[in-house]
Amino acid sequence: MSEPGVLTGPVEIVGAGLLGTSIGLALRRAGIEALLSDVSAEHLRTASGLGAGRARREDDRPQLVVVAVPPDHLADEIVAALRRTDAVVTDVGSIKSEPERRVAAAAPDLAERYVGGHPMAGSERSGPLAASAALFDGRPWAVAPHAGAPAEAVGLVEDLARVCGAVPVRMSPAEHDQAVARTSHLPHLLAVLVAGRLAHAPESHLALSGQGVRDVTRVAGGDPGLWQQIVTLNADALHGLLAEVREELDILQRAVTTGDRTVLGALLDRGVAGTLAIPGKHGGPATVTRSVFVSVPDHPGELARLFADAGESEVNIEDVRIDHDPGRPVGLVELVVEEARAEHLLASLESRGWLTHR
Amino acid sequence: MSEPGVLTGPVEIVGAGLLGTSIGLALRRAGIEALLSDVSAEHLRTASGLGAGRARREDDRPQLVVVAVPPDHLADEIVAALRRTDAVVTDVGSIKSEPERRVAAAAPDLAERYVGGHPMAGSERSGPLAASAALFDGRPWAVAPHAGAPAEAVGLVEDLARVCGAVPVRMSPAEHDQAVARTSHLPHLLAVLVAGRLAHAPESHLALSGQGVRDVTRVAGGDPGLWQQIVTLNADALHGLLAEVREELDILQRAVTTGDRTVLGALLDRGVAGTLAIPGKHGGPATVTRSVFVSVPDHPGELARLFADAGESEVNIEDVRIDHDPGRPVGLVELVVEEARAEHLLASLESRGWLTHR
Repeated sequence: MSEPGVLTGPVEIVGAGLLGTSIGLALRRAGIEALLSDVSAEHLRTASGLGAGRARREDDRPQLVVVAVPPDHLADEIVAALRRTDAVVTDVGSIKSEPERRVAAAAPDLAERYVGGHPMAGSERSGPLAASAALFDGRPWAVAPHAGAPAEAVGLVEDLARVCGAVPVRMSPAEHDQAVARTSHLPHLLAVLVAGRLAHAPESHLALSGQGVRDVTRVAGGDPGLWQQIVTLNADALHGLLAEVREELDILQRAVTTGDRTVLGALLDRGVAGTLAIPGKHGGPATVTRSVFVSVPDHPGELARLFADAGESEVNIEDVRIDHDPGRPVGLVELVVEEARAEHLLASLESRGWLTHR
Repeated sequence: MSEPGVLTGPVEIVGAGLLGTSIGLALRRAGIEALLSDVSAEHLRTASGLGAGRARREDDRPQLVVVAVPPDHLADEIVAALRRTDAVVTDVGSIKSEPERRVAAAAPDLAERYVGGHPMAGSERSGPLAASAALFDGRPWAVAPHAGAPAEAVGLVEDLARVCGAVPVRMSPAEHDQAVARTSHLPHLLAVLVAGRLAHAPESHLALSGQGVRDVTRVAGGDPGLWQQIVTLNADALHGLLAEVREELDILQRAVTTGDRTVLGALLDRGVAGTLAIPGKHGGPATVTRSVFVSVPDHPGELARLFADAGESEVNIEDVRIDHDPGRPVGLVELVVEEARAEHLLASLESRGWLTHR
């Protein structure tokens, strides 16, 4: 083993689902050996086949064990790993206080080697086939050690986050659980309530669905089996937030009924302030962008030509979206660029013969 | 004027904000004359400058008037247009019953010529500078005539929707208001309650914000002044939905407190069903897609080369996302393709030397 706190591997990964397999892929990309296990032989085969690592053997001696199993099984698998190895053990579970308490109770003499973690990345899809080495790129990765955790163990878990392309963010388990209740679990539950109103809705109502309702409800498509574990295991942190929402919903309902615009305005203003409070990508300030729309004939060479021409304009493209109309010969490409550069890009593309839309 | 129900113009647009200016741009793209007015001289100048049409003159004789003003002023401007012209009058307001009632009461002898409309497109940005001729492409556009509306007038408004690239969807004003309460106004209000929990939240909580909370809260950034009008004017339709949410929130709170996973599971399942009920883009069935990630050196020529190579593989790209890391020399490009074609694209890009991530 090299210097303490530096990840050299091998890393054992317990659970070859979306997160476990993605970590294996990221480790292999960095040239670090990954040792996999899973209760499902098929998941294990799939993850290995994708290049996320090889099956774990009895005599393996990992430097770090990453437990990537559903929340209900976290504590048991963490304790098992602490007993089976002398490695530092971490996990990727969505809640941190409950497993930490259970590990400390079940294995008080070994619990020191456990340092909880939680990458803020995922997908409404699950399983190894949805995995990607790029899943964690630029994302926050909470590292939530218990009070007495040794610095080397914490450093090793932070190194794992960095090797996976993520940004480690250190906080206590209790603080983590409060944070994700607010930024992940509550948004999930309210998205579920909105989506619930669409199930069995008249088709004519659904026909008017725009991008807004798609965005609000996307996360509600996540695995109910997983989410009922997350929500019940983080009940303490969710409690106060649900009470706040309940109170504001009452105020909202009254304001809608009585047409009280002052009260409504205050609620809506607070919502705007909330959207502005979310930090920009990668923790930087949010850039003001503008979309430039271009009509592009729907065959592959044209897209390449568009990007070549956009490249000539020397405007940095922040994001791209393609809107296909099946059966139409022309698609619409949305180029998102810095606001101050949009006019220059439009002029540049137009001078090259592209049909742009302001 | 040519055959009845066929839009040839000129079209007068009252209000040169996001929607009015976008309609002007779409009409001009189709070679139809657009006549603009706005209480703000600056908006009018900006919209004209962008090519959305020319300022309206006293002696103009429009074939159709589109009222694109905030909900509070809809009925007054519709009545004024009915009195000033002999054209068919439509609007793009988010609610339909309330203005229809007020128009019928204020101008019973002229109300026949009014046919309400509502394109399901918008942005959390507003004003003419955010406008685009492509805003309505492939989107539903509700056409909500009163019971006695003449077929020619309805046809003309449906033609406007088509000229703007949208898909007209006909329904009664009452049905429209129920539909948007469910698919737009309720999602907006619950997104506001989620976003409200982020205002004044501890920075350490906000640091864990992932894509989920960004998606859920995006619409909550919309103009509070506009939304308090929409919500109060559609109070009747919102009433029952808010009561349903209130009831489910009580059930949810109890289930979280008592750890009742059966009840939670049922709520979460219903949420999944709701997300699946939303029709696919352009009304077609949702395609099963998979993301292919490619590392791309962060300068413009490389992006063009990637698309050229992807083009060679003959895989149709459904969507693209670019993840920039400021200060990093390599960006991550996500190509969304039909699931069955993903492996072929990966192999094809790898054989051309691209670093892909599964």
